[in-house]
Amino acid sequence: MTTPASRSNIILQPGDALLLVDVQKDFLSGGALAVPRGDEVVPVLNHCLNKFQKRSLPTYASRDWHPPNHCSFTEQGGPWPAHCVQTTEGAQFSDALVLPESAEIISKAWMPDQETYSAFQETNLNEKLKTGNIRRLFIGGLATDYCVLNSVKDAIQLGYTVYLLEDAIRAVNVHPEDGCKAVEEMTRMGARLCPTSSLCPALAHSNALLTDLYQLTMMQGYFDQKMNQTAVFEFFVRTLPANRGFLVAAGLEQVLEYLETLHFTETELDWLRQCGHLRRDFVDSLEGFRFTGDVHAMPEGTVFFGNEPILRITAPLPQAQLVETRIINLLQFQILIASKAARMVLAAPGKQLIDFGLRRAHGAEAGLLAARASYLAGFSGTATVQAGALLGIPLYGTMAHSFIQAYDREDLAFEQFARSHPKNIILLLDTYDINRAARHAVALGKRLMKKGIRILGVRLDSGDLTVHARSVRNILDEGGFQEIRILVSGNLDEYALATFTKEKAPVDGFGIGTCLSTSEDAPSLECAYKLQEYGGRPCRKRSEQKATWPGRKQVYRTINTEGVMQEDRVTLDDETREGTPLIQPCMQGNQRLAPPEPLTEIRKRIAQQLQGLPKPMKSLQTEFTYPVKISRALEDLAEAVDRRIDLPT
Amino acid sequence: MTTPASRSNIILQPGDALLLVDVQKDFLSGGALAVPRGDEVVPVLNHCLNKFQKRSLPTYASRDWHPPNHCSFTEQGGPWPAHCVQTTEGAQFSDALVLPESAEIISKAWMPDQETYSAFQETNLNEKLKTGNIRRLFIGGLATDYCVLNSVKDAIQLGYTVYLLEDAIRAVNVHPEDGCKAVEEMTRMGARLCPTSSLCPALAHSNALLTDLYQLTMMQGYFDQKMNQTAVFEFFVRTLPANRGFLVAAGLEQVLEYLETLHFTETELDWLRQCGHLRRDFVDSLEGFRFTGDVHAMPEGTVFFGNEPILRITAPLPQAQLVETRIINLLQFQILIASKAARMVLAAPGKQLIDFGLRRAHGAEAGLLAARASYLAGFSGTATVQAGALLGIPLYGTMAHSFIQAYDREDLAFEQFARSHPKNIILLLDTYDINRAARHAVALGKRLMKKGIRILGVRLDSGDLTVHARSVRNILDEGGFQEIRILVSGNLDEYALATFTKEKAPVDGFGIGTCLSTSEDAPSLECAYKLQEYGGRPCRKRSEQKATWPGRKQVYRTINTEGVMQEDRVTLDDETREGTPLIQPCMQGNQRLAPPEPLTEIRKRIAQQLQGLPKPMKSLQTEFTYPVKISRALEDLAEAVDRRIDLPT
Repeated sequence: MTTPASRSNIILQPGDALLLVDVQKDFLSGGALAVPRGDEVVPVLNHCLNKFQKRSLPTYASRDWHPPNHCSFTEQGGPWPAHCVQTTEGAQFSDALVLPESAEIISKAWMPDQETYSAFQETNLNEKLKTGNIRRLFIGGLATDYCVLNSVKDAIQLGYTVYLLEDAIRAVNVHPEDGCKAVEEMTRMGARLCPTSSLCPALAHSNALLTDLYQLTMMQGYFDQKMNQTAVFEFFVRTLPANRGFLVAAGLEQVLEYLETLHFTETELDWLRQCGHLRRDFVDSLEGFRFTGDVHAMPEGTVFFGNEPILRITAPLPQAQLVETRIINLLQFQILIASKAARMVLAAPGKQLIDFGLRRAHGAEAGLLAARASYLAGFSGTATVQAGALLGIPLYGTMAHSFIQAYDREDLAFEQFARSHPKNIILLLDTYDINRAARHAVALGKRLMKKGIRILGVRLDSGDLTVHARSVRNILDEGGFQEIRILVSGNLDEYALATFTKEKAPVDGFGIGTCLSTSEDAPSLECAYKLQEYGGRPCRKRSEQKATWPGRKQVYRTINTEGVMQEDRVTLDDETREGTPLIQPCMQGNQRLAPPEPLTEIRKRIAQQLQGLPKPMKSLQTEFTYPVKISRALEDLAEAVDRRIDLPT
Repeated sequence: MTTPASRSNIILQPGDALLLVDVQKDFLSGGALAVPRGDEVVPVLNHCLNKFQKRSLPTYASRDWHPPNHCSFTEQGGPWPAHCVQTTEGAQFSDALVLPESAEIISKAWMPDQETYSAFQETNLNEKLKTGNIRRLFIGGLATDYCVLNSVKDAIQLGYTVYLLEDAIRAVNVHPEDGCKAVEEMTRMGARLCPTSSLCPALAHSNALLTDLYQLTMMQGYFDQKMNQTAVFEFFVRTLPANRGFLVAAGLEQVLEYLETLHFTETELDWLRQCGHLRRDFVDSLEGFRFTGDVHAMPEGTVFFGNEPILRITAPLPQAQLVETRIINLLQFQILIASKAARMVLAAPGKQLIDFGLRRAHGAEAGLLAARASYLAGFSGTATVQAGALLGIPLYGTMAHSFIQAYDREDLAFEQFARSHPKNIILLLDTYDINRAARHAVALGKRLMKKGIRILGVRLDSGDLTVHARSVRNILDEGGFQEIRILVSGNLDEYALATFTKEKAPVDGFGIGTCLSTSEDAPSLECAYKLQEYGGRPCRKRSEQKATWPGRKQVYRTINTEGVMQEDRVTLDDETREGTPLIQPCMQGNQRLAPPEPLTEIRKRIAQQLQGLPKPMKSLQTEFTYPVKISRALEDLAEAVDRRIDLPT
């Protein structure tokens, strides 16, 4: 099975390089060994080249550079016709390929008696990449099932993160399945499929300065003391907000992206040098800074509770310290929204829920991530266009009051809208008088019917929505439009949804804005990211009301035969307990252990988890407290740590 | 008076061009007419050239291209020695200047009998710029007081927005003040001073897709109907949240930046074409889309109330529609934070307040803008490093509990921190036991004193902060350290600050996090951006509980002789009333009418406004309702609009 491509964009950064494999005339149409549809990769690769150039990132172009008597040629008993013979025209790169002057040429398979396909074999490519501090390699070219395949395999084995440019490769297909099998093999080994359109060349600022100043002042202290041993930090929520019976893990993907790409730009280093808070020698040491650590976490979509670690960072102390602020910033917000949205999903079973929250979200990123987190929790989609473009979340939306007002005449506005969007007609009824508007909709619906056009729905945005929905339903039904759906919006939260459900209001879908995107009744979590171990020595903080459990931890969950959650137990990481361990490894030495999880997979997980909640937790009540126990070994460790710290100093 | 440079970065975008004025050998050291320190502009301009190239933006380089008998030469009775004679070496550009191949050369002053300084005179520069859709011109070169001055003046008169690269110009200074006077004249005419370091070459995505889908579906409707007449939208808050007696306007600068730079990138248009919601011909029409309208607004820092418009957009309907979502998104959040922060400033007079809120803010942008809005309201600064780097806000921060824990021994951690940051020692006391930590601080303080090093402060972050502050104060005082300041942090809001003030707790400063950056007790506003007029016809929405006042409006505020606010009156824009009109023009045809206001000026305005609040509004109570009246003419207009809409349709 091939790994599905991530929908998110990949931001090119220092440490990235492009490898073009054998885009040579002999492999293109009219060549001695033309790859079927091989010419198609050229414009796609030109587009990539342009993106890499914009970021001043290096390009390597490999070429078959065979001697005339190469062993792979049929004349010598090999499988191929003579091709790419040194200095012949067939060995030249495609004339249409716009290679920058700075591109480095890697000549391969130049020894007469040795057939090699990989750009790494008998070449100095690996050496060049290492010298250039290259960590991620984007590979495209010809042919998928020979030179691309073998170059990718070598690159992975040499420790590079490999992105296979899926639309910039073509296969020879001696057997028709060869190309597909090669892609399968590469992804199984860890190559990530990536369409060239998802490469983003530009980054104004890195996220490295999205941190508190004290992280940097402490790092200067660590630098001076050469305190570079392994630190273990864990992220957890101390206690749940009053109106939440459970929380839903979300935001891991953004944390991994952040850690993968973390670096200081030159501009940022220049700024830090003169900011007056840090010494120059320390700032100099941040050049080439990377996160090199490990991440363990609960998968996104896991239901969790207070005092349970949901993410663990294991890294040299300065790295693990710097990332605190942004990790909390990313995790808290998506947990808030996924948890709030999950309550809404529970309160409106079977109804369509749509995120309308961008305008009242706290800034752009909040709007975007609220669309993501609510979609994970079971929302159908969002109105936020950028969430569609960047994250692939389904978009919804038709008209606002201003559209009606601009026409003055409501019936005219409806008619014109129908003309512009005949396949997506949803009419807003409450600009002036809802019932009159409903009658306009019926009249329009009858006229449209003759043209075979249907009104999909109507939307109500003010007043007593249940009352209005009933009267609009009547008007529509009497007009013969039982199939027109009624959507409502306007300061709705999970309690309002529960009331609609209880009153059996004739509403088919809900647009949810402010209450969702600000998590209005609980806009923050008592969450923390705390040092639990340093240099192999467990530690804990003992501040009043804020003491933490020391050491690396695991959470085991037991589930009964009906699939219902029974109990969680927080243990030391190396304890083995009944149940399922929730914390799983997901990044090692800054390498992801799996490609980004598709949003649809996380949606399925949340749906399953909500299904498995104990019954009282499926309501909006929060009296029921799910049992979370602390293992004896963990309690013992806490005591031992306290005894150590209490030694006279 | 020269206009102070903005601290914010300027993001280069399509429509920008760089104009290098006369960086020729004769104006550099050793040349016939060397400008003092003229050589210094070359490396600075190379840096700029690089940034423009990265964004593929055009560069124009002007040159004096005199005939040998030019009238400006002393031989012909002119003021200058012969210089920049066509084809001579002196007329060449500096060898050190790295002009890209694509740079266009503009030869000027080439007529024997005419002395011209401007790059626009007798050249085709204007034509080239218009053809290239250039709107913003970044100008540097030689010499400030002649050719730069005259080129800038012409550019402004031709309607370009001109940024003067303040560190990339040098003056001849025939009279010592000439250069300064020229800069003064240019800024008075509207040129903006801009250091080259503030130019940002890269932008991954524009903000155009930070909008709701319905804005685009409605725009397609407007496109089909050619509804392109002028629309007037106003932003206002319907009613204040329960815990707020007033609000503070903030976020205008970000709105203006957004409108100035609004455009769709090619990638975004490609995405829209295939998203399935819009027609191709409509999306094609968005190429070259720009905001061309006007903005009127209350200056940032103005205190305001419910039903008062604080921002008005006047623009062709589709433009004014598209920007709704992001304008609300930007204004609501900063108003929330500035208003919350103002309450904190009122509750803790004379104390230092610092924003610690990034980690619990809703995403990165929220963290950054919370730092800005709280600084405007009177906070001393922030812990958020990016807010320092991008906005120039003062930074604060020293150590976290993890620093102490990593050392295990608290006294050792304190000592090492002091060694790394001898000028900024603030010690965190509550990792294990606060009083013991205070004694460690005293002991360290005594050792440091011998080296002439002082501890600036201590911080407490948990437990009963008043009780701990008193006991720590005693320990420090008894140790002889009356000057060490005590800072506290940990879930503080304005009520907690008021309690500290009332109890006269010995606290000198406060770190404020979550309650500030999420505006925790009021995380959203009942705010709206509504169409008030279209094609010269006032309109209003009449939805239940959501009716709006029609037409373009103004707010007049009366203030008594002691400077205390008395009453506001919402009127039609063309009414003249007693008091100060609060809504002011700030952008016309997408051109700002003044450079970005320095944060320090807005701080002063807020301080004055808080000073002028009626006395009951200076407490945290919100019983007192400030009088906001609606003018009779406005009420009459609303009735007239209703009568029009009620006409049978």
